[in-house]
Amino acid sequence: MPRIVTVAAAQLGPIQKAHSRRQVIDRMIALMEQAKAQGATFIVYPELALTTFFPRWYSEDRAEADQWFEHSMPGPETQPLFDKAKALGMAMSFGYAELTPEGRHFNSSILVDRGGRIVGKYRKIHLPGHVEFDPERAHQHLEKRYFEPGDLGFPVWEFEGGLMGMAICNDRRWPETYRVMGLQGVEMVVLGYNTPSANSQSKNETAADRLFHHRLSVQAGAYQNSTWVVAVAKAGTEDGHHLFGGTLIAAPDGKIVGEVQHEEDGVLVHPCDLDDTRFGKATIFDFIRHRRVEHYGLITERTGVGAPLGKPEGA
Amino acid sequence: MPRIVTVAAAQLGPIQKAHSRRQVIDRMIALMEQAKAQGATFIVYPELALTTFFPRWYSEDRAEADQWFEHSMPGPETQPLFDKAKALGMAMSFGYAELTPEGRHFNSSILVDRGGRIVGKYRKIHLPGHVEFDPERAHQHLEKRYFEPGDLGFPVWEFEGGLMGMAICNDRRWPETYRVMGLQGVEMVVLGYNTPSANSQSKNETAADRLFHHRLSVQAGAYQNSTWVVAVAKAGTEDGHHLFGGTLIAAPDGKIVGEVQHEEDGVLVHPCDLDDTRFGKATIFDFIRHRRVEHYGLITERTGVGAPLGKPEGA
Repeated sequence: MPRIVTVAAAQLGPIQKAHSRRQVIDRMIALMEQAKAQGATFIVYPELALTTFFPRWYSEDRAEADQWFEHSMPGPETQPLFDKAKALGMAMSFGYAELTPEGRHFNSSILVDRGGRIVGKYRKIHLPGHVEFDPERAHQHLEKRYFEPGDLGFPVWEFEGGLMGMAICNDRRWPETYRVMGLQGVEMVVLGYNTPSANSQSKNETAADRLFHHRLSVQAGAYQNSTWVVAVAKAGTEDGHHLFGGTLIAAPDGKIVGEVQHEEDGVLVHPCDLDDTRFGKATIFDFIRHRRVEHYGLITERTGVGAPLGKPEGA
Repeated sequence: MPRIVTVAAAQLGPIQKAHSRRQVIDRMIALMEQAKAQGATFIVYPELALTTFFPRWYSEDRAEADQWFEHSMPGPETQPLFDKAKALGMAMSFGYAELTPEGRHFNSSILVDRGGRIVGKYRKIHLPGHVEFDPERAHQHLEKRYFEPGDLGFPVWEFEGGLMGMAICNDRRWPETYRVMGLQGVEMVVLGYNTPSANSQSKNETAADRLFHHRLSVQAGAYQNSTWVVAVAKAGTEDGHHLFGGTLIAAPDGKIVGEVQHEEDGVLVHPCDLDDTRFGKATIFDFIRHRRVEHYGLITERTGVGAPLGKPEGA
């Protein structure tokens, strides 16, 4: 018996600074209706789905950026999205900037069940970019200024009949992200992203190069943990800054089963059979038989690069 | 100033059971001369370069397989290869079955400097396959029968002006392999393989699928650690069993800079600038700034899959 999760990867086109939350929520609701019409029961929106990708803008006073954060979830502006999801019986995941009652800032995402209940939260761990204004860069990428690193680990939840995990944007480049979830048996990882199509520190890197790195990282994570990965972009040009698209769904064998070819709002719907994860998990990636943790120590002992350990043979 | 290592990926065509070590060494020497003529200073041969891929053959008496193992390195049959390398001033790496004086069996590879001295040894950690004869499989893959897992970790050596690591075959599918070396600053990983073009447990997997998984794993390992990877096949049909080719060199940005398109003996020579590793190591994969080891604990705490850690939000 297959265990199908019909997922909609709901790409968002650009959100300008001047756009209101209300405008964005209306777009998200429209995508949800499209997803429902195509048979989806779970819709996944991108990272920071409710606003423009504000970490590109430097504010000396960090509190100025608080306008981009949600103080409660759901809040008055997001409640209609939750109401619509519950009315349609649609599970969902989306990313947003989270400001906690204690005043902490995170780049977060949530899992919401078909009843509109938040059943899981993830806070982005691998924050890219920098803290202070950097005049050497072609554009700023101040995630390390506006967020603190996530403090919830990489949990996996029982959700929609399977084992579900979340990651956000730059997390997808780090094999540790998928492996920590793989060691919990993850069957589907959902992740949203806002990725500039230019590398702020290299003129040589093309948008095609960056799409290649995106696909490579997602496909390797899927294959090496035998899990579905649903990767969802916010795409297009936000106030003159371009984000690439490339919303895709990767199967547990690492193959891409569908990819969005535009940079506007749109859904990519695929019936993902969670049982397709079983073959890889039982054979080449049967961790209990093949992993050798006694040789992985550096992965948790060292954060950065340290001395090489090779000794001359016989020494 | 670039730091060029001109490497030759020396693919071997098939080695039949009936072929002698002497025949193989002659082929390896011929490849070394080709490599030298093309300007290489470092030649990399595949896993188990001296013999057929014997783990496909079941022997009830394991000692029968000892004929495929080297009792000393160099030994009488391999000494001419070392002599030739020294005469040509060629550094080299190759894989072989190692039988230690204590009677232990490993799937090993070595680094040999331009003076013919063995300066590094690696013993394969991720042994694929199984221990006992398995009638359910289309072919046997008895690496877990004939070898014990490597006991030397994943060291990185100062070698040829850079930081060099080794891996073997199935190791390349495991992101831990590259990451442990990446945390030692590795600039080039050399790895050989013998990979059947059929999955013994799945008729659905094609040779093209398996080449895709090979490339995906090698390219992701290169990109995510900003290192060169030189991946070298033993290819073609050995006594009726086909091994795929796909010898390739991946750059630190994950791109393939050259790939062999046949399944015979041949060299792929590329001048690898080790300084090309610097950009990735200093930016997106600057581990000290971006890795969050406090969330990676499961990677060393758990060998196999355990319970999911997700708790309902608010619990």
